[in-house]
Amino acid sequence: MPFNALTPELVSAFEQIVTPAHALTAATADAQQYEAYGRDHTEDFHFAPDVVLRPGTPEEVSAIMKLCHEHRVPVTARGAGTGLSGGALPIHNGVVLSMERFNKILKIDERNLQATVEPGVVTEAFQNAVKEVGLFYPPDPASKGSCFLGGNLSQSSGGPKAVKYGTTRDYVLNLQVVLPNGDIIWTGANTLKYATGYNLTQLMVGSEGTLGIITKAVFRLLPYPQQNILMLVPFRQEAQAAEAVSAVFRAGIIPSGMEFMEREAIAWSSDYLKIPLTLPEDITAHLLIELDGQDLDELYKEAEQVYGVLEKYDVGEILLADTAGQKDDLWKIRRNIGNSVRYNSVYKEEDTVVPRAELPTLLKGVKEIGARYGFKSVCYGHAGDGNLHVNIIRGELSDEQWNVGLRQPISEIFELCVKLGGTISGEHGIGLVQKPFMHIALAEANLNIMRGIKQVFDPHGILNPGKIF
Amino acid sequence: MPFNALTPELVSAFEQIVTPAHALTAATADAQQYEAYGRDHTEDFHFAPDVVLRPGTPEEVSAIMKLCHEHRVPVTARGAGTGLSGGALPIHNGVVLSMERFNKILKIDERNLQATVEPGVVTEAFQNAVKEVGLFYPPDPASKGSCFLGGNLSQSSGGPKAVKYGTTRDYVLNLQVVLPNGDIIWTGANTLKYATGYNLTQLMVGSEGTLGIITKAVFRLLPYPQQNILMLVPFRQEAQAAEAVSAVFRAGIIPSGMEFMEREAIAWSSDYLKIPLTLPEDITAHLLIELDGQDLDELYKEAEQVYGVLEKYDVGEILLADTAGQKDDLWKIRRNIGNSVRYNSVYKEEDTVVPRAELPTLLKGVKEIGARYGFKSVCYGHAGDGNLHVNIIRGELSDEQWNVGLRQPISEIFELCVKLGGTISGEHGIGLVQKPFMHIALAEANLNIMRGIKQVFDPHGILNPGKIF
Repeated sequence: MPFNALTPELVSAFEQIVTPAHALTAATADAQQYEAYGRDHTEDFHFAPDVVLRPGTPEEVSAIMKLCHEHRVPVTARGAGTGLSGGALPIHNGVVLSMERFNKILKIDERNLQATVEPGVVTEAFQNAVKEVGLFYPPDPASKGSCFLGGNLSQSSGGPKAVKYGTTRDYVLNLQVVLPNGDIIWTGANTLKYATGYNLTQLMVGSEGTLGIITKAVFRLLPYPQQNILMLVPFRQEAQAAEAVSAVFRAGIIPSGMEFMEREAIAWSSDYLKIPLTLPEDITAHLLIELDGQDLDELYKEAEQVYGVLEKYDVGEILLADTAGQKDDLWKIRRNIGNSVRYNSVYKEEDTVVPRAELPTLLKGVKEIGARYGFKSVCYGHAGDGNLHVNIIRGELSDEQWNVGLRQPISEIFELCVKLGGTISGEHGIGLVQKPFMHIALAEANLNIMRGIKQVFDPHGILNPGKIF
Repeated sequence: MPFNALTPELVSAFEQIVTPAHALTAATADAQQYEAYGRDHTEDFHFAPDVVLRPGTPEEVSAIMKLCHEHRVPVTARGAGTGLSGGALPIHNGVVLSMERFNKILKIDERNLQATVEPGVVTEAFQNAVKEVGLFYPPDPASKGSCFLGGNLSQSSGGPKAVKYGTTRDYVLNLQVVLPNGDIIWTGANTLKYATGYNLTQLMVGSEGTLGIITKAVFRLLPYPQQNILMLVPFRQEAQAAEAVSAVFRAGIIPSGMEFMEREAIAWSSDYLKIPLTLPEDITAHLLIELDGQDLDELYKEAEQVYGVLEKYDVGEILLADTAGQKDDLWKIRRNIGNSVRYNSVYKEEDTVVPRAELPTLLKGVKEIGARYGFKSVCYGHAGDGNLHVNIIRGELSDEQWNVGLRQPISEIFELCVKLGGTISGEHGIGLVQKPFMHIALAEANLNIMRGIKQVFDPHGILNPGKIF
């Protein structure tokens, strides 16, 4: 291990930087609160930080980084801890750098349709703030009510609206970043176009806290789409639900949401939320389809086209949500599938992604692999993007089966993704738990380039060590 | 200079790789043809290659790169040579690697709305091919009739439609790249979402041929928008034309084109093309505004909203193009401004970009700087993106004034861009001619990271040496 342990002198230097109130150790902090800094939403992992620092300014982050750089102390940045690949877990202990105090929306620039924010702002709070002035920030991960924009940037988070509007990556214009040596840089400019050297902004997005600490972000915004239509389409055959996805796009329609849910995904979530939902016995899957825009008449025309496409499949009665409350309920059910699965059992979430027309083949393959290896999975996700979340349920699996036995079937699922033109993570990142599978998606030459880039930014390897590769 | 000169042995090895017909030297090739490989569309620069190689497969590119890597021979990849920042100029001589034989559209995947192409395909040819099956590839640089997709990728090219649809960067999913050491890699996956390690795809885009040679690209496509409306709006005050741009967006409309043209830009181009255009004396600038979509009624509603916004400004009679021929003419005029300026005089093109609402301030600043230093400029560009092309006309300027005297005023223009939140290139890249100005946009820490990344990909610095930094 090339890292050094924390000394009392270092802890006291950190206290000077952030004040003692924001430098927590196991000895001084509330036990439950402190324990939470060692977890995220990934399975049941826990790693204890040596110290939790909660800086409030880029300059404080810079001072912390300089010390850690000099003393070879690992630093794991942390947003809201809602990640599903273990990105925020301090597996080499050291400093957990919590960005929770970076919680201000600094500027909403209505003239330029841009906003400057700190990374600890909750995604939904940001969406609501810009909506108040008629603007729209589309990326909406399922955890939007609690996750931070900084975490979204680190994982290149998507969400249901990505199918029409793209992911976090597509909205960031410029980032203020503290480098491991303490330098504070801006990665780009506040412009819609940028061709000024290598695109460091896009390199930071999705780098999972391994290259620098994001301390400010400039996002572009859109005019808020005033109208939407939401429909829940029940299918009698899962494969047809997956096939219909591609057919809708081929008809020239780009929905603002196109979500796939297996029967059990929707059943578990509506039970968990106690939102009653009629679920005829012959229904095996649903698509939740949203259309949005500025003009309701136009949307109804599009909806008719969607009906025209769906009519070719064996579907049950389509539910067209006609009140805001009904729409909220349907989205709540979709967003809480992950929580309902977690409520039922420990699970591993595989964030598979393929070109969208390959979804039926992927789904069939996942079930076939599950049957062969004897595990159960609940599948759902952003079908419009070909992004299928495969939740493998622990259920009655032994420690041995869970920790070792699943390695092979998960490899097979990822090999199938790659064979279909896809990859092993669409929006959750690699973090800790997908690391063993990176060689399936990437050649050694790719990994070597990534290691080289890491070395350029972080020569001592102190930032989020042990993640990605 | 760390590079080695070409030996007859190397030339003969190259001939073995690509066949003698595709290994041109000054001694063997047609003089005029050979001379053209030393130019692009940047001012009147010329640098002679030692050899021009025209490989036909990634394996040939790989074999060439291995030799050049081993023997420290510079390699400058070349697309169609339409670049405006000198990116394709072989300033250290060596090998010019012409990608002209990589001219095949390999696959249009209608199921997944994707296409796989070689980098030597002409942008417009690709657009036409996908349009035939109802699909849409939006990026449309002014040179789309001759430029290559590979060049678009290298410069992160935009064009008029970027304001609604984004630039080349936003359509590329995956790239096949030959690294300087000859390794052939794919940078990502053929998926709409990607969170699998550092985003090498986005790092390649805009890297101006300094990191690797692109040999295949996978692009995403959209359904083709069947309808559009085009209007030419004359303004009596330039500043108001620039102001109106932002007002249209604030009204909730996202045009598919929003082009600004100074009086002289439009006058020179219509003269050059011999397309007659009525230009009342009091008109100082125009906006060319396009709306697109699937439904004409909807577009007319939007057009009315645009009229409502424009009514607040001092505009002349708005021309609503009502035939396909008239639309073509207007776009032809817009696209040929660069050519008409080139026809009139040698010029330097500065690819300034700012947040769009800062455009009036930028325009005013450019004119003020021009007046102070005694040069004339013709300004036009993608106003919806805040991307203003400033063409500085050589006219009667002496060699001294042209080569040295303009350094200071150009610096001042770029300093103004950066002060307004912008940068020194929106879509043309840095190449050779903007290199002296990089320090205005980027801190030394940024440049050091870029140099480090370059070193990771290309340890001997053989790829397009002397560009960007």
